[in-house]
Amino acid sequence: MTTSQIHYGGDYNPEQWPRDVWEEDYAAFDLAAIDTVTIGVFAWAHVQPAEDVYDFTMLDAIVQRAVEGGRKIVLATPTGAMPPWLAHEYPEVNRTDFQGRRHVYGQRHNHCPNAPAYQRLSAELADRIAARYTGTPGLIAWHVANEYGGPDGSCYCDHCAAAFRVWLRGRYRDLDELNEAWNTMFWSHLFTDWEQIVPPNALSEHWRGPNHTAFQGITLDYRRFMSDALLANFVSEKERIRRHDAATPVTTNFMGPFRPIDYHRWAPHLDLATWDNYPPGQREEVRMAFSHDLMRGLKDGAPFWVMEQTPTITASRDVNPVKRPGVLGLWSWQAIAHGADGVLYFQMRQSRGACEKYHGAVLDHAGRTDTRAFKEIAYLGHQLQELGDAVLGARVPARTAVIFDWDSWWTTEMTDGFNRHVSYLGVVLGYYGALWRANAAVDVVPCTADLSGYDIVIAPALHVVKGDIADRLRAVVERGGTVVTSFWAGRADESARAFLMDAPGPFGDLFGVRVEETDSAPPGEANTVTLALRGDPTPSAASLVFEILEPEGAEVIGTYQQDFYAGRAAVTRRRAGAGEAWYVGTDLDPNGLDTIVRTVLERHQLLGPHADNPDLEVVDREGMNGTYRFLLDHAAATVEIQHISPPPNPDFTDETSHP
Amino acid sequence: MTTSQIHYGGDYNPEQWPRDVWEEDYAAFDLAAIDTVTIGVFAWAHVQPAEDVYDFTMLDAIVQRAVEGGRKIVLATPTGAMPPWLAHEYPEVNRTDFQGRRHVYGQRHNHCPNAPAYQRLSAELADRIAARYTGTPGLIAWHVANEYGGPDGSCYCDHCAAAFRVWLRGRYRDLDELNEAWNTMFWSHLFTDWEQIVPPNALSEHWRGPNHTAFQGITLDYRRFMSDALLANFVSEKERIRRHDAATPVTTNFMGPFRPIDYHRWAPHLDLATWDNYPPGQREEVRMAFSHDLMRGLKDGAPFWVMEQTPTITASRDVNPVKRPGVLGLWSWQAIAHGADGVLYFQMRQSRGACEKYHGAVLDHAGRTDTRAFKEIAYLGHQLQELGDAVLGARVPARTAVIFDWDSWWTTEMTDGFNRHVSYLGVVLGYYGALWRANAAVDVVPCTADLSGYDIVIAPALHVVKGDIADRLRAVVERGGTVVTSFWAGRADESARAFLMDAPGPFGDLFGVRVEETDSAPPGEANTVTLALRGDPTPSAASLVFEILEPEGAEVIGTYQQDFYAGRAAVTRRRAGAGEAWYVGTDLDPNGLDTIVRTVLERHQLLGPHADNPDLEVVDREGMNGTYRFLLDHAAATVEIQHISPPPNPDFTDETSHP
Amino acid sequence: MTTSQIHYGGDYNPEQWPRDVWEEDYAAFDLAAIDTVTIGVFAWAHVQPAEDVYDFTMLDAIVQRAVEGGRKIVLATPTGAMPPWLAHEYPEVNRTDFQGRRHVYGQRHNHCPNAPAYQRLSAELADRIAARYTGTPGLIAWHVANEYGGPDGSCYCDHCAAAFRVWLRGRYRDLDELNEAWNTMFWSHLFTDWEQIVPPNALSEHWRGPNHTAFQGITLDYRRFMSDALLANFVSEKERIRRHDAATPVTTNFMGPFRPIDYHRWAPHLDLATWDNYPPGQREEVRMAFSHDLMRGLKDGAPFWVMEQTPTITASRDVNPVKRPGVLGLWSWQAIAHGADGVLYFQMRQSRGACEKYHGAVLDHAGRTDTRAFKEIAYLGHQLQELGDAVLGARVPARTAVIFDWDSWWTTEMTDGFNRHVSYLGVVLGYYGALWRANAAVDVVPCTADLSGYDIVIAPALHVVKGDIADRLRAVVERGGTVVTSFWAGRADESARAFLMDAPGPFGDLFGVRVEETDSAPPGEANTVTLALRGDPTPSAASLVFEILEPEGAEVIGTYQQDFYAGRAAVTRRRAGAGEAWYVGTDLDPNGLDTIVRTVLERHQLLGPHADNPDLEVVDREGMNGTYRFLLDHAAATVEIQHISPPPNPDFTDETSHP
Repeated sequence: MTTSQIHYGGDYNPEQWPRDVWEEDYAAFDLAAIDTVTIGVFAWAHVQPAEDVYDFTMLDAIVQRAVEGGRKIVLATPTGAMPPWLAHEYPEVNRTDFQGRRHVYGQRHNHCPNAPAYQRLSAELADRIAARYTGTPGLIAWHVANEYGGPDGSCYCDHCAAAFRVWLRGRYRDLDELNEAWNTMFWSHLFTDWEQIVPPNALSEHWRGPNHTAFQGITLDYRRFMSDALLANFVSEKERIRRHDAATPVTTNFMGPFRPIDYHRWAPHLDLATWDNYPPGQREEVRMAFSHDLMRGLKDGAPFWVMEQTPTITASRDVNPVKRPGVLGLWSWQAIAHGADGVLYFQMRQSRGACEKYHGAVLDHAGRTDTRAFKEIAYLGHQLQELGDAVLGARVPARTAVIFDWDSWWTTEMTDGFNRHVSYLGVVLGYYGALWRANAAVDVVPCTADLSGYDIVIAPALHVVKGDIADRLRAVVERGGTVVTSFWAGRADESARAFLMDAPGPFGDLFGVRVEETDSAPPGEANTVTLALRGDPTPSAASLVFEILEPEGAEVIGTYQQDFYAGRAAVTRRRAGAGEAWYVGTDLDPNGLDTIVRTVLERHQLLGPHADNPDLEVVDREGMNGTYRFLLDHAAATVEIQHISPPPNPDFTDETSHP
Repeated sequence: MTTSQIHYGGDYNPEQWPRDVWEEDYAAFDLAAIDTVTIGVFAWAHVQPAEDVYDFTMLDAIVQRAVEGGRKIVLATPTGAMPPWLAHEYPEVNRTDFQGRRHVYGQRHNHCPNAPAYQRLSAELADRIAARYTGTPGLIAWHVANEYGGPDGSCYCDHCAAAFRVWLRGRYRDLDELNEAWNTMFWSHLFTDWEQIVPPNALSEHWRGPNHTAFQGITLDYRRFMSDALLANFVSEKERIRRHDAATPVTTNFMGPFRPIDYHRWAPHLDLATWDNYPPGQREEVRMAFSHDLMRGLKDGAPFWVMEQTPTITASRDVNPVKRPGVLGLWSWQAIAHGADGVLYFQMRQSRGACEKYHGAVLDHAGRTDTRAFKEIAYLGHQLQELGDAVLGARVPARTAVIFDWDSWWTTEMTDGFNRHVSYLGVVLGYYGALWRANAAVDVVPCTADLSGYDIVIAPALHVVKGDIADRLRAVVERGGTVVTSFWAGRADESARAFLMDAPGPFGDLFGVRVEETDSAPPGEANTVTLALRGDPTPSAASLVFEILEPEGAEVIGTYQQDFYAGRAAVTRRRAGAGEAWYVGTDLDPNGLDTIVRTVLERHQLLGPHADNPDLEVVDREGMNGTYRFLLDHAAATVEIQHISPPPNPDFTDETSHP
Repeated sequence: MTTSQIHYGGDYNPEQWPRDVWEEDYAAFDLAAIDTVTIGVFAWAHVQPAEDVYDFTMLDAIVQRAVEGGRKIVLATPTGAMPPWLAHEYPEVNRTDFQGRRHVYGQRHNHCPNAPAYQRLSAELADRIAARYTGTPGLIAWHVANEYGGPDGSCYCDHCAAAFRVWLRGRYRDLDELNEAWNTMFWSHLFTDWEQIVPPNALSEHWRGPNHTAFQGITLDYRRFMSDALLANFVSEKERIRRHDAATPVTTNFMGPFRPIDYHRWAPHLDLATWDNYPPGQREEVRMAFSHDLMRGLKDGAPFWVMEQTPTITASRDVNPVKRPGVLGLWSWQAIAHGADGVLYFQMRQSRGACEKYHGAVLDHAGRTDTRAFKEIAYLGHQLQELGDAVLGARVPARTAVIFDWDSWWTTEMTDGFNRHVSYLGVVLGYYGALWRANAAVDVVPCTADLSGYDIVIAPALHVVKGDIADRLRAVVERGGTVVTSFWAGRADESARAFLMDAPGPFGDLFGVRVEETDSAPPGEANTVTLALRGDPTPSAASLVFEILEPEGAEVIGTYQQDFYAGRAAVTRRRAGAGEAWYVGTDLDPNGLDTIVRTVLERHQLLGPHADNPDLEVVDREGMNGTYRFLLDHAAATVEIQHISPPPNPDFTDETSHP
């Protein structure tokens, strides 16, 4: 079995099955050219059946069988799901939820990150596993815990309250600084003792839910703190692994644009970015492309892995349709096109019981290898085998960056005063979608990223202004590049406080505009904006948020057509030397965004190939073996791969179709 | 006053009224030919005003007045609503809800079944009441407590946790067997001590609500346990009654298809099935007919009673329309037609205060006897008087059975992976409705029922396979009968684990089919199925669930017309000798179900009379006095009763109309 | 700066800003002719930074600057928002919510009114503030706490339970009387010890939410108790103020028709009615007019103030549109027309952080005075300056009264049996809207009001009959007046018990009608009613509730056209001498209500001017300087003021338009 190829396989739980089934599994793996298994994700209960008992008999056998089978191994620390004895003996390891309720044992991904027992025992377990399996043939990565932060992300117990206070003491010089940052003079919240500070939840600062807080500053800090607390769990395990294994990459599986965790805060601590791709619908190509680019951006463009995807259905939706013919291949190749060096499944064999028993798997309950699903899995396996190492390690070069910022995500969605129907991710996906339809290569990056390599930087709703981002955006324009931002940009400082100046705050000079009023409307009500671009384009629908702009150096590109601000500016562009700074003050429909984005792309000659076909995605991946172009037809569910530079290797040109 | 007639009257609470009102009551009972009163349902507080004080003064007077009035008496133990002192002195008698919150005093039907104080005091009270009133003239039944399990059904307190562990030790040999049954290797749930097991609720295995559990096996066992725990309360009281009264039937009022309680587990312990009929809407004839047949099926077809219905409005809906003219009679006669020997009301006189003060009653707040409602009540009373004992004890013979299974109900609705918009009861009512429209006589039976007397057995969505049900269904086919099942059948064992074989699991051989894929769609999206029956019927809409069937011995009867599985089998029929086994892999519209069901009925010559009139229900009841046919017109709200065998008694033929 | 004018200004929080900003503020106040500042509302944390430390340095400076600036001062006790130390040291000051959860520190308006620490410290603080600032030049009112009862109103802790029992002992002679009032024989609730009584919430008598209770009597008493408990907080502070200041009016800001607090129980304790006007939508003229009239009715027609309104947007809605041009003036003048002597804003300067940072303000984050919003604020300020004392103290005479009753509000909306889609406020606004469209002057009064001065009394859904209201309504008719009521009237006594007689209970004789049945339908289903008025008017849609009326002395005015009660009475009128009593048994559409209301108004020659223009509101205000007529065009957002009696002062006639 070749190891120099895209990693292909996935989560494998033979501990749930008798030994004779293992042999059936490996026979099926061979049929499907599966070369990689992820082992041990839910193994805590059997490797440590009691606090003082470690028993590696089963895990040894599983690992040994994988080694014998010549598979690549991704070895998990099993700390994503706690065993019953742990919760029973140390009740504090169970989270206290947003409602303030301490939970008891159940489910998974629900430990309190600040519980001493969890911290101690998870690190100890990682240490023992690393000690035992470091050096295992085929071991290609350590997979720490599982989907940190899911499903709800936060704990609000007394341990967390205490840890939050410690975290705050590290962030603020003293209570005066904290009071200033949180603007506690509002509503008489002046804290005079650190002990007075409690976690913000339904029993304290919140009403309705996590997005409604009396103090954005408190909640924003708590989100950062909780993201850091879970990160500390990861780092603690990683350190213990590194005591034994200095080289093998250590990762944990992320979840794309997952709100509870700021992956940009985590990224430096991972050796490799991996993520689980479970899109909510059946036509999610834009969201998936964005997610791939976001994940790739975590490690400066280095290849990432899809650690999990389902071969057939998910089990957790209200409605769980099967993947249509060809979709399994299409979505896998999309991942590879965007930079994945691994496409792995959850799971190799369907569980016999519990909530994921109908989650798709390589092998169903009957173990069939003659179903449509298995045939598509095997077909893809053989395609990947044939592709070999052609694109391994290859990059996806881009001259356009989209800035994605968890602080802005958190802050905009917990802020009263505008429009609760706007989602930050939705706004970003609006711009990303326009770039995607134009087949422009894009990096999705944090606001701390080096922007010097980009011609175009799009920072939709960049609400929170941190560090020198205003200066670095200005630098893009000054060297002839283009910057685009939208409504809600430049409104809040790092503590979610308003700037004491016109919106867009510190970005005002760059864009040459000020926001005089911010109007809102419910979904379904629209204004119209005409854009003075490309001659006389179709008017675009504008909805939800309507900033009435007053140009102060910018030219007016788009104007509202209705309401009392008919004729006022909705979209502006400031030219500064060879550069341009665009401000879009309303939520434009795709037609409007396409017009603006393509105007900008054309200025830099970055409009991609086949930009006239809205179903055809084209992505180039460049590496040691040249450039491969992936043509992904999301309507037909077909894929074409071209070796465009150096001239195509005649040994590999392929087009998928379902077998 | 005749006692040999359908019991007519209902819940009577004179303890809420001064004595002079009692005389008004009895005068009105005479006017309406009311011969039965249910006494004592909410009497706990006045018969036992403190733990060590029993005071029967009031109850004695109430009973004495009923005896003087020559009424039949249904005497309740008042343990459905606890008095304040009990909750105050023994807080553990208040339930801990699904959210984990221990309640305090309020409402009713909310005791913890495992609270020692409740167990002790309710049994003691039943004992004293039985001791005092056994032998009362006219006493026709003991009515234990009230509507067990309502409104939410379950308690999750520490007493229940402990009792659950005891119950589990009775069910499973050891923890190994339990771990195997619950498939606890999934998500590292291996229990190593019984004390680690906690009730499954919002603080442990559940998210979103009672239908979302990480471990179906745990939740399924908890539902069974809770049903059994409440049953133990009933049995405990019944035993105390039997110490004094060896003969009078003991019952409790059920609620038709009520999900929290598995009435099939309870039925052997009751002497008589009774139920409360409060349909949610104004045209519920199918649901009510089903419920009557389900309740009649609890005691092998013996007559049951409608213990409660409202004369006018319910009070608990968001909108509470009055019963239209004639509906009171229509629905009462429907119950009688389906086997009821009693039609009783809640309540005789409207309560002056509290949440049911506007619930309908025989006598309204003004005590009027000249209203439309009272006139209809009295008219029905006189009709019943005239009918006398004509149908008392008569049966409703049926050669078609529908299998209804609480385990399948619970399991399908807590299972991830298919479609959360499907309701088990809805699926069963789909098939039952087709039978109803065809005026076929139906028994609704548990999967443990003797099936040897049926020509047709329809087992929609028989998801959980228990005992020898597969063999017994096969036997029906082998002797020339017809069996019908649907999607989701044969999927789970008694512990809700998947069978390690193709769906429909152990039913696969019988139906000669396997399910290759199970697709789902949200409500509103439909496929189309054409059925090769009756020439070329109109295509039927198929929705929600789409099993792609691979015949393995069956012939294809219905095929999908759309999507990638157009042309694949949706409905199959396997002929085996003279018998047939039908499998319906999707949720067909009424047109499709009618086509299938009528094809089957015609094969056995069981299509009923007037099957072409969708509003006209025809039911025959056979007994000592011959066969009476009830023609119930649900559009016109009229009833005709024919004595069809032996030739009609000229003394009794009637047609209701509102007075 | 003139003091003899409508108070203009609002909430001012300079403690949140450095001193140099204060000077900018006052410069802007001058520009906008702002003469009044409300100070100290959220000052608790800085005037009392610890239990034993009072520090008035900041508040002294703020007051001093206002005095220097010649402003009128409204001085708040800052007890609406507790400081962290208070909640930390005395956890019982945090409310226990409807779910039974004790909260921890956060938000505001959330103290337990029965917490000893809150009671003691709030009174002490009021005392110290009054001691210090009594006699301050320009001090025109004391503003105690803030928006009592918001946002959720009630606490359910053990302190409250104990205080509730004390309150009940004051209301009921003994437990027998209490049991009788609550009808506790229902569901075995006979209380035998006061300690058995617990607050009615989600853990006791309630399901689904605050509107679903097993015992309306208990919940009704708890609402009264909680309203009284908060009132006791107010009274306690007021008493402490009065120890120092015998003369300055003491008020607190109400919230119009705010369900949790019975403002009629509070009104006698206030010297002045004030309220905060935050309508939920953009066309709320009827609701606002009603609210003004309700607030004016609290103090027998004396002028009130709008204590808060937003200059631009609210921040707390899901969608927060800006006020359209002219609307700020239009709504302010509407308040003045209806009797306001003050129109004040929340807030003078936008907060830098926390949940109201985008709530509208006189000065935005940039402090601009050149925006549309500021210009409209300043324009209005100068208009008010020009108006001077012309209408100060003037009254709004009315010969029509609408009765509004919190007990009926609470009771109808917590009662099972009719239709949960009906809102009491909605019903009242239906009738009020018809009066408003007819430009009839209206007083909104409690059922205890002196009705002798009214020609017309409209008492929609006057469900709870208290005291001698039936006699007083009868007296209106007997002296030739007209009384109108609607469905649900006369149903319940003070304990929410049904009257043991036909509906409308004690009102039956007066209206000459009885309700035979009460039918209901969901929203969207309608019956039709034809009214025998004005020749042959268009039939009106009737919805939700359908009382089938039996005239007993009344004539039939409206009849149902559909359903089984087609032809039965829906609307009746009883003539008694020169008087009339109308009963409207269903929820008529505006057309139907207009027809009835105008018929009544015309009878008394009370139809107002311009009654044919549904957008034009006309209100007269009469005082020392004669009568001013306000013509408010809610479509055009313009206002015209006419001095109609004595003949207009040529110095003041104005028409607003946006500047």
